[in-house]
Amino acid sequence: MSTVNKTAHPFDKGRLEALLSRRFFYAPAFEIYGGVAGLYDYGPSGSSLQANIIAEWRKHFIIEEGMLELDTTVITPASVFETSGHVARFADWMVKDVKTGDVIRADHLVKNVLEGRLAGDKEARGQAAAPVKEDEKDKKKKKKMAKGAAVQLADDVVKSYEVTLAQLDNFSGPELGELCRKFDIRNPDTDNEVTEPQEFNLMFASSIGPTGQHPGYLRPETAQGHFLNFSRLLDYNNGRIPFASAQIGRSFRNEISPRAGLLRVREFTMAEIEHFVDPEDKSHPRFKEIREVVLVLLDRHVQASGNTTTIKMSIGEAVEKGIIANETLAYFMARIYLFLLKIGINPDRLRFRQHMANEMAHYATDCWDAEVHNSTGWTECIGCADRAAYDLTVHSAKTGHPLVVREALKQPIITEKEMPEFNKKVLGKTFKQDAGLIQKHVESLDEKALLKLKDELAKGSTSITIDGKTFEISPELLRVERRTFKQSVREYTPNVIEPSFGLGRILYMLLEHTYWSREQDVERGVLSLPPVVAPTKVLIVPLSAKEEFDPLVREVSSKLRRSGVFSRVDDSNTSIGKRYARNDELGTPYGVTIDFASVQNRTMTLRERDTMDQRIGSIDEVIATVTDLVEGNIDWAEACRRLPAYDGVQAID
Amino acid sequence: MSTVNKTAHPFDKGRLEALLSRRFFYAPAFEIYGGVAGLYDYGPSGSSLQANIIAEWRKHFIIEEGMLELDTTVITPASVFETSGHVARFADWMVKDVKTGDVIRADHLVKNVLEGRLAGDKEARGQAAAPVKEDEKDKKKKKKMAKGAAVQLADDVVKSYEVTLAQLDNFSGPELGELCRKFDIRNPDTDNEVTEPQEFNLMFASSIGPTGQHPGYLRPETAQGHFLNFSRLLDYNNGRIPFASAQIGRSFRNEISPRAGLLRVREFTMAEIEHFVDPEDKSHPRFKEIREVVLVLLDRHVQASGNTTTIKMSIGEAVEKGIIANETLAYFMARIYLFLLKIGINPDRLRFRQHMANEMAHYATDCWDAEVHNSTGWTECIGCADRAAYDLTVHSAKTGHPLVVREALKQPIITEKEMPEFNKKVLGKTFKQDAGLIQKHVESLDEKALLKLKDELAKGSTSITIDGKTFEISPELLRVERRTFKQSVREYTPNVIEPSFGLGRILYMLLEHTYWSREQDVERGVLSLPPVVAPTKVLIVPLSAKEEFDPLVREVSSKLRRSGVFSRVDDSNTSIGKRYARNDELGTPYGVTIDFASVQNRTMTLRERDTMDQRIGSIDEVIATVTDLVEGNIDWAEACRRLPAYDGVQAID
Repeated sequence: MSTVNKTAHPFDKGRLEALLSRRFFYAPAFEIYGGVAGLYDYGPSGSSLQANIIAEWRKHFIIEEGMLELDTTVITPASVFETSGHVARFADWMVKDVKTGDVIRADHLVKNVLEGRLAGDKEARGQAAAPVKEDEKDKKKKKKMAKGAAVQLADDVVKSYEVTLAQLDNFSGPELGELCRKFDIRNPDTDNEVTEPQEFNLMFASSIGPTGQHPGYLRPETAQGHFLNFSRLLDYNNGRIPFASAQIGRSFRNEISPRAGLLRVREFTMAEIEHFVDPEDKSHPRFKEIREVVLVLLDRHVQASGNTTTIKMSIGEAVEKGIIANETLAYFMARIYLFLLKIGINPDRLRFRQHMANEMAHYATDCWDAEVHNSTGWTECIGCADRAAYDLTVHSAKTGHPLVVREALKQPIITEKEMPEFNKKVLGKTFKQDAGLIQKHVESLDEKALLKLKDELAKGSTSITIDGKTFEISPELLRVERRTFKQSVREYTPNVIEPSFGLGRILYMLLEHTYWSREQDVERGVLSLPPVVAPTKVLIVPLSAKEEFDPLVREVSSKLRRSGVFSRVDDSNTSIGKRYARNDELGTPYGVTIDFASVQNRTMTLRERDTMDQRIGSIDEVIATVTDLVEGNIDWAEACRRLPAYDGVQAID
Repeated sequence: MSTVNKTAHPFDKGRLEALLSRRFFYAPAFEIYGGVAGLYDYGPSGSSLQANIIAEWRKHFIIEEGMLELDTTVITPASVFETSGHVARFADWMVKDVKTGDVIRADHLVKNVLEGRLAGDKEARGQAAAPVKEDEKDKKKKKKMAKGAAVQLADDVVKSYEVTLAQLDNFSGPELGELCRKFDIRNPDTDNEVTEPQEFNLMFASSIGPTGQHPGYLRPETAQGHFLNFSRLLDYNNGRIPFASAQIGRSFRNEISPRAGLLRVREFTMAEIEHFVDPEDKSHPRFKEIREVVLVLLDRHVQASGNTTTIKMSIGEAVEKGIIANETLAYFMARIYLFLLKIGINPDRLRFRQHMANEMAHYATDCWDAEVHNSTGWTECIGCADRAAYDLTVHSAKTGHPLVVREALKQPIITEKEMPEFNKKVLGKTFKQDAGLIQKHVESLDEKALLKLKDELAKGSTSITIDGKTFEISPELLRVERRTFKQSVREYTPNVIEPSFGLGRILYMLLEHTYWSREQDVERGVLSLPPVVAPTKVLIVPLSAKEEFDPLVREVSSKLRRSGVFSRVDDSNTSIGKRYARNDELGTPYGVTIDFASVQNRTMTLRERDTMDQRIGSIDEVIATVTDLVEGNIDWAEACRRLPAYDGVQAID
């Protein structure tokens, strides 16, 4: 088994992007029409990679935890988002270039300009420039930023920039406007000043039906579909709680000026879980299974102090110390971590960052983002929020439909209370139209006042004054009695813990984390995708398209299919080396070659993508080995123990 | 093995709908907000059924045929749909009630009213009422229609109604307006007259970005995403043709007044294939595999003659006779048929209907719909259209981006042509500013005119008259020579065959076709979903929730999981009979019971849904048998041969 040096060449985003375009992982949508910012199409490789990530997600979350899957609509009547608060508050702050009218997202502008100046400062001080946001597609902008910023800054200015950047997500719109004035932040494309920040709602609006009288929006998250179906879901779950619903689907956000490839898009596939839990008991029955998992945490206090120092801590300890609020939130953070590792994210480039108070979405009470490090810095890929009872409460209040759990109490709660009891007939006769007034007044009295009244009535008649009018009340009209109440059902609005995954971002992170170039040739890119997500698991390569190989190609294809291993045949008219190089770019982990020896001796070689090692065995041995490899039962070292090395000469391009 | 009478009770749509709601297959979206017509949410059972249909679709089409999967955006800039013709022509005709302003789709109005009158006529003649559109949810309307129509009609009126209905899809808007006047068709809800039909575009409109200056639409089909990526797809396929792309995704149509449940919705999941093929060779390499498949066909000539008589014919014969235009179109029709049978559609309720000329979408040159019979009549579920070169041609013309195939010719095409050759220097000197004019004129001459010129020049000078001006041309200025041309590349715009599936409609048809009630109790509904699409394959039923069953439940669950069989445990607090009855409604084909005998003897009973037969065997035997059943390796008769009958007494609720 050979060793491989995957870090011989520094990461080169331009080469990766060229590969992704060449192999049609994804491409700008409507490219031949000039494209539309923030919209991308996935080609065969990207679709397949995404489908495999989704399949693994379904297994890891939905199947493993018995979640209830949903598929709800994108189009949503305006009233729903008015109630949920999205119409009023689901907005970003934008500024306009005062001369050109170009629109820029305010926080992004501050971030880009300050990071550019800090990078220029480092350059001026003779330090290596920090890996600031690199956008190869937007070279003009980059050049401008770099040029304008090659200036050394005073030490206290550097410090104030750094503190500002650490707290950036915590600023309101007006505060971002102040920062622009304080630091003289201008549109880097034109050097013009910018306007005061204005809010822009991120939902796409449309109209439902032919009359134009029913406004609607495209959902910016799938969550509302879960909440509105809560009663049906609870019923489906036989009235039991906790349970979780899950949904994988498209959502839409009309981003202000998206420029960062798959990291900021206007249309994206999400996977969302809404875990409904008793607000008084957020423990999790399977917490013990993950309590030893160690995460990298960046909590809100550290950030609020202008710092970004992380700590490494086990989930168990973080909950004990109150850093993570409860077991259920922590359980999902650990499960998210395990999922990301399984699909191939580098654990050293993964952290959980807690939202600061002002940063939190309007519905959340606590939130931790799973952030993944990439060429642009740290990017949120998954939000894990405690939405408390916010959504169910507002929808219930608006519609009058109770969105609650009714739980039979094992031990009924017995309470005693003083209760007024009127002789209504006599009361009516005595006070006529005032009778109702008196009754209402007495019923509104608290325990203490009722006891006082009871005491007075025990001594004979007493008087009550309402709105300046006094009424004489006799024991014949009113008695106050101690009564016993038995409550056998508890009714409550559940809380919601919401892990919410942006699949496009995760997919892109995975591509960055698994991309490298061969030591001997920087042009030969490889995507070391794990078999579980690789679009194709095994490439079948006949020596040539000659008919004599057809029966064996069919046999191997069909045996792999029966073993549940997805393979593709490449009988194109190029060298075997070129075909393997193409499949290294597609992330295909294994390849089998069918040649004249296969026809004569029924042997086949097996190639591993990263090492380019080749082993040889009988067709059935190789199929059994590659099946075990793909299913994760064995690793390549074990495969090398099973199959001898192949020392035949094979042209490698 | 018991026999089952599935037709003991007539189909009852009300009962089916109650079941689907109770078991949360789907429900009106935004139900607690009063709902929005044409929008539905899928619950856990419906999502799972849909996911299984999609998985089978992917296997049957994408994997089997090596199609290239895509995932393109919903949001589309207006320019794309302007080019594709959707902005101008993707519309339905609507009429308004002249008094209330209620909006009704014109063709639906004509259909409902005429069908109502025909039903009333049959009633009046003492014949059984035909099974007209039954919409249980809309009883008011139905009653009105029936009431207004309990009148006997003249024989020639009946005939004219029938002819009109057979051709209904062929009428234009103005023609529908004429029909309303001719037959005095009014709004059945109010008995008011209706306006002349107006066109209503069915696309949802929105706006992209913060400036409001970029209009866009939600796609009404996924097809444009395939066409716009054609060059990348062709490149991915190494420049070879034919190939197909495939996409499963959401589309949106702002239907005028949807009322028919899942049959007419405003948001739906489609699965679309675009098969790109050489326009001069629409044969299909795998045609021989399906040529014996027999389909029920209703061609356009039969319909145009006011008839709906179908014929049964093999695919091979239909192509030979020219009823189906070409092999590729026919191949997909057969594959569609096989797919529908595989997931459980009743072949006796399936036909292929050819579109009539006026009915065809603006982009299609031929189209066959797979129509499935259901309680509302025949409903289109899949369209199989020949879009010819329409889409690629218009997008290419609009963008200037060639969407063509360049094919190296095995045999270069050698042609000879007469070509004018000027002595440009002398020509310029002689005629100054007229030189260009002369050159252009000569170059535009056809072969015959060039030969004449050549002939004249061979004899000496000749003259050319352009716009009344005559020029003397000598052989020194111009020669006409015969030249040989070699064309080694053929360039052409491929044609597109498009099978387009509405998954929601197919799902609903499947529910109607598989639903029945137990002979002994009409309240006990069963969905006889085939294992391949059933949401759960095996229900594990412990006798009670007692802890002593837990180890076996875990063992059976995990063994089934390892065999790739999806199971669920139901340990809820009701009788085993009730739990099985619930799962009959969910379509779960098999159940295994774990009881005290299981703990003592490691035996387990196996129950089959339709027959309610119970067999018994060792735990491992039962697991092996049920795995074979679910994978389709054996049928229930074979399972009965393997496992003895269980004659223990079991309470059935």
